[in-house]
Amino acid sequence: MSKILKFSDIEAAQERIQDYVVTTPMLQSSRLNEWLGHRIYFKAEHLQRVGAFKARGGCNAIRSLLEKHDKVEGVHARSLGNHAQAVAWAAGLFNVPATIYMPKTVSPVKAQATRGYGAKVVLYDDAVEVDAIEQQINNQPGHFWISPFNDAAVIAGQGTATVEALAQMPHRPDALFAPCGGGGLLSGMLVAARHLAPTTQVIGVEPANANDAWQSLQAGHIKALTNPSDTVADGARTNVVGDITFAHLQQLDDFFTVPEERIIYWTQWLQHLLKMHIEATSAMAMDAVVEWLRKQSTTKTVMVLLSGGNIDAAMMRRLWAEDQLQMIPSL
Amino acid sequence: MSKILKFSDIEAAQERIQDYVVTTPMLQSSRLNEWLGHRIYFKAEHLQRVGAFKARGGCNAIRSLLEKHDKVEGVHARSLGNHAQAVAWAAGLFNVPATIYMPKTVSPVKAQATRGYGAKVVLYDDAVEVDAIEQQINNQPGHFWISPFNDAAVIAGQGTATVEALAQMPHRPDALFAPCGGGGLLSGMLVAARHLAPTTQVIGVEPANANDAWQSLQAGHIKALTNPSDTVADGARTNVVGDITFAHLQQLDDFFTVPEERIIYWTQWLQHLLKMHIEATSAMAMDAVVEWLRKQSTTKTVMVLLSGGNIDAAMMRRLWAEDQLQMIPSL
Repeated sequence: MSKILKFSDIEAAQERIQDYVVTTPMLQSSRLNEWLGHRIYFKAEHLQRVGAFKARGGCNAIRSLLEKHDKVEGVHARSLGNHAQAVAWAAGLFNVPATIYMPKTVSPVKAQATRGYGAKVVLYDDAVEVDAIEQQINNQPGHFWISPFNDAAVIAGQGTATVEALAQMPHRPDALFAPCGGGGLLSGMLVAARHLAPTTQVIGVEPANANDAWQSLQAGHIKALTNPSDTVADGARTNVVGDITFAHLQQLDDFFTVPEERIIYWTQWLQHLLKMHIEATSAMAMDAVVEWLRKQSTTKTVMVLLSGGNIDAAMMRRLWAEDQLQMIPSL
Repeated sequence: MSKILKFSDIEAAQERIQDYVVTTPMLQSSRLNEWLGHRIYFKAEHLQRVGAFKARGGCNAIRSLLEKHDKVEGVHARSLGNHAQAVAWAAGLFNVPATIYMPKTVSPVKAQATRGYGAKVVLYDDAVEVDAIEQQINNQPGHFWISPFNDAAVIAGQGTATVEALAQMPHRPDALFAPCGGGGLLSGMLVAARHLAPTTQVIGVEPANANDAWQSLQAGHIKALTNPSDTVADGARTNVVGDITFAHLQQLDDFFTVPEERIIYWTQWLQHLLKMHIEATSAMAMDAVVEWLRKQSTTKTVMVLLSGGNIDAAMMRRLWAEDQLQMIPSL
C-alpha cells in the first residue's frame, strides 16, 4: 500500500482544523525582491497558534483520534520544541489530557509554555526511557502516542498551510521551499502542491549540520545521524526521518543543505527586512532560494514557508552574536 | 495663536498620504491578555513603510510642501534613525532630492538604507556644523529643512496612525500609550484621540535615561538634557522636545518613565509573544501599561503604538544579552 497521502486527506484536515487555526498572512519584502530581481513570498506560519505550523498537524491528529475512537483518555508526545506546544494546545481545545515528555535540559521557558497550554510535562534523563514509555502507551487502550511527523494525520494537517498559501498568491509560483526536520511539513506541501499546482517545484532544505534527510535521499534508504546534531536551525535538528515522510521526500524536485553561517545570515536579514521574529529554521530556506534562483534564466516567483517563531534568549544571543547586516543580499 | 493642531489637519494628512502608506495591522497576544487580565491592542507601525510610523509624518510634510510651494528643489533633515529613512523615502516618491545629515558614528546599515531610498547622505563630525547648515538651508529658496517632530505637518501625519487604530478596535479603548522622543507621535495621538474618543486617556512614556520631556512637564517649561543620553530605546533618545510638541504634551493624561532593565524585559517579551521584530522604543510603553493597570479597579482595554522595527545587530546583542523570559509578565 502506498505511503503517499491523497489530496483528499488534506481537504479533510482543513475541515477538521479550520475553526481552530488562524489564516496566517503572506508577506513580502519589496527591498529583497528588488535586490534579488525575483519575487519571494513568505507564508507567516510563525503567526500560527502556538507560534508554528505544528498547530495544524497537532489539531488534525487529535480531532482525527476523537473521530475514530470512542475513548480518547490521553495523548502523549515527545518533543522539546513546537510539536510539544502544538499537542498540548490541541489537546486542551478538546479537553483531552496530554502528557509531553521533554529532556531535563529543555529550557524552562519551553517547558512552562507547554504547561501553560494545560499539558502535564514529564522531564526525562535518558531518551531510552521514553522509548519504553512509548511502547507501553501504544498498548494501552484509549491512549495515543502522537509522532511529530511520521503520522498521516499530522502530515495532512501540515499540508493545509500550503493549500492556504497557494490560494493567497496571485499567480501559481515556480517553486515552494520548506525546511526539513522529520519531513512532515514537506510531505504535506508536496501532496498539496502536486494536486493544486503540478508544475510548481517543491524543494526541501536542511541544515548541513543535520543532513540526515539529504544523506538518506542520496543513499535511497533512510539513514540516521549517529550523534545528536548541533544547529541554530533547531526545528530541523531531527536525526532521522520516518518511513512515511521519506516516501514523500523522495518525490521532491530538489533538496539543499545550508551551512550554519548562511543560516545565521538569513535569520538576521529576514528578521530585519520582514520585521518578524522568526526562527533560524524558518530563514534557512532563503539560502536555497538564492542558490536555486542563480540557475534560473527568467524572473521567478517562489514561496518560502516560515515555520515558526519560538526562540529562547540563548538562541537569540547566538543568532545575533556577529553582525550579518553589513553585506546586502544579492544573487 | 494656539500651537495645538486641529483634527482637520490630521484629516487633511490622511487624504495626502493614504495612497503611499500601508494600513498596518492591529495585534494581540491572548497569553498576555490572560496573564494581565486586561485587553491590550498593539498597533503594528513597525510594519509601516520604512519600518516605522515616521513614514506618515515624512510623507505628509513633503506633500504639504509640494502643495504650498511652486518650487521644491530639495528637502533636508538630520537624523540617525527612522526620520532619515522616512524623509528619504517620501522625497523619493515625489522625485524631490533629499539630503540627510548623519553623524559619522551612524551604523553603516542605517546610512546604506537611507541611501537605498535615493537620498544623499552627508556624514558629519560635529552637530554644531549641522546647526549652521540648517540656518543656511532655511534661507535658501526652494530648500526646506524637515524637523523630525516640531513641525505641524509631521505631527498631523503621525496622528493618522491613531485615527486608523481607533477605527480598528471594536470598542473605544480606555487608554492609548505611545513612546515620547521629540513628542511628534504623542502630539498627533492626542489631537486624534481628543476628537474621536474624548474620554480615552492619552499617556506618554519615556526612558528614565532620557527623561527630558518628563522633566519639562514637571517644570512647566522646556528643559533640555545637557549630556547625550544612552538608552536601548534609541528612538526616544531625543534630548529636548519642541515648542509645538510641548504644548501638546502638557495636555496628556499621564506620563511615565521606564528604567533600562524594564525596557529590555518588555522588548524580549513582546518580540517573543507577538513574534514581531520591534524596537525597544516600541516595547517600552508596556511597563507603563502595567503600572497604569495596577491602579485600575475594572477590566480595561488599552492600545500600545508599536513605533518601529529598525534594529542594528549591536542593539540586538544588547537587547538579548540576558535572559528575561524566565519571569512571566504579571500585574
